[in-house]
Amino acid sequence: MSMGNSKIDIKQRVLNSYNQQAFMKLLGAEIVKLESGLVVIECPYKSVLTQQHGFLHAGVVTTLMDVACGYAALSTMPEGKEVLSVEFKTTLMRPAKADIFRAVGKVVKPGKRLTFCEGVIMDKETDKEFARMTATMICVDINPLG
Amino acid sequence: MSMGNSKIDIKQRVLNSYNQQAFMKLLGAEIVKLESGLVVIECPYKSVLTQQHGFLHAGVVTTLMDVACGYAALSTMPEGKEVLSVEFKTTLMRPAKADIFRAVGKVVKPGKRLTFCEGVIMDKETDKEFARMTATMICVDINPLG
Amino acid sequence: MSMGNSKIDIKQRVLNSYNQQAFMKLLGAEIVKLESGLVVIECPYKSVLTQQHGFLHAGVVTTLMDVACGYAALSTMPEGKEVLSVEFKTTLMRPAKADIFRAVGKVVKPGKRLTFCEGVIMDKETDKEFARMTATMICVDINPLG
Amino acid sequence: MSMGNSKIDIKQRVLNSYNQQAFMKLLGAEIVKLESGLVVIECPYKSVLTQQHGFLHAGVVTTLMDVACGYAALSTMPEGKEVLSVEFKTTLMRPAKADIFRAVGKVVKPGKRLTFCEGVIMDKETDKEFARMTATMICVDINPLG
Repeated sequence: MSMGNSKIDIKQRVLNSYNQQAFMKLLGAEIVKLESGLVVIECPYKSVLTQQHGFLHAGVVTTLMDVACGYAALSTMPEGKEVLSVEFKTTLMRPAKADIFRAVGKVVKPGKRLTFCEGVIMDKETDKEFARMTATMICVDINPLG
Repeated sequence: MSMGNSKIDIKQRVLNSYNQQAFMKLLGAEIVKLESGLVVIECPYKSVLTQQHGFLHAGVVTTLMDVACGYAALSTMPEGKEVLSVEFKTTLMRPAKADIFRAVGKVVKPGKRLTFCEGVIMDKETDKEFARMTATMICVDINPLG
Repeated sequence: MSMGNSKIDIKQRVLNSYNQQAFMKLLGAEIVKLESGLVVIECPYKSVLTQQHGFLHAGVVTTLMDVACGYAALSTMPEGKEVLSVEFKTTLMRPAKADIFRAVGKVVKPGKRLTFCEGVIMDKETDKEFARMTATMICVDINPLG
Repeated sequence: MSMGNSKIDIKQRVLNSYNQQAFMKLLGAEIVKLESGLVVIECPYKSVLTQQHGFLHAGVVTTLMDVACGYAALSTMPEGKEVLSVEFKTTLMRPAKADIFRAVGKVVKPGKRLTFCEGVIMDKETDKEFARMTATMICVDINPLG
């Protein structure tokens, strides 16, 4: 009996991969929503994640959107596949200050090889947007020896 | 007596700002070279900085290049000014695995308001390139109440 | 009596500038909708605008989105100002084939100096999207000697 | 007897494709240099290619770099393959004014599927740079029915 791309299956595959991302643990971020083509990640403010003015570092802003976009893409890919970021562009619209940051990644155009995604990061409470991302993701075979 | 844009002055201004970036401390990164329009940052491999396959996380890859580009831009700006990232694009050419990562940021076109930079991150030992960045930086007044 | 940023005023300013763009005439494109922060441009298919497989050239795809984004930005700027593109990224999702191409440019985040926009180009009839753009626009003074 | 990837072969394949690009004829651009991983295109100034201030239109600036990057990528791909642009970012450093514009496209990282390129456009006479591009190109099979 094959589970195919059932919702449970997708969730498990994404979480299995996500939980191996040591850097996401360091940030204290977690996936709070996961549908086919959509991933939401939340990360509470911590002073160790800031730049020189106390705002969330552009590198953290980017990380949260990249991971949300990457797993949104993976959620549309068949079993036995993995996702890698090819490139992304981050547009920093406002300094990022919030108690909890919410990053949303969405698939704009899925594909057999390349999947195009868009991301946004906002204040969880007010929905004020801090930055946006456009990203190209690639579907690769899981390396059985990896 | 004004120190103007002397080399010592630039170095001090960049380091003063860099040392307030809590996130760079968390990564364990440091500036190892600093000239007008050029900044080199090094960061040793640590397992907490990795993604699901043990490679340096794209978010860390981006952070190191963004900061190198930002301070390369600041090093060409007059006293009393600060730099903010407007946008950047990261191109991920190869999985990033090395003992020590070296990120280089260079000013391509300085400007009164906008400064365009390019970054690269490589294996310190082999110079093998993992990713490249193009970035737009903006020169802003230091907020005396900031 | 000042017209300020009235709708008529904005339309006139945008059209005055647009009509001086010789390249848009060469393409045969025209503005079909213009509101504050939103511009729609249409361009009929012509074989001289194609690449080697008969699809609309990525350069034309980009031009139509860039101009739509640029004037969307200008429509939010005060009188006596002009807009210049700082940078843009074009994501090419599908080969572009249509009788009439429709490019939409929207302001995502206006600003005194920098305005961030997003664009899309689609088949006018089916709304099928071919490409998307994110762009940074800058507000500059009109050069009285220009 | 196979010609393989001989220089003559590459040149012929690139030119065969280039000559079918109707839009490049409209611009009046031509390939003036072609090596493995490097393409140079030149385009004389014409008033029909300008924006509202008489500078080369950002869409033309982009087109010339995109085509140079695309064929630089194709020149590193095996016979029977074609190249498509996945995405590109154009950074506009200065208004583009020259008698002859020269666009250079280079392969930064070739790959079986994805090839990363960088482009620049300058004044042929003075080498003054107007804009830069980073681009992702994909290698696809030639459609025999295309």
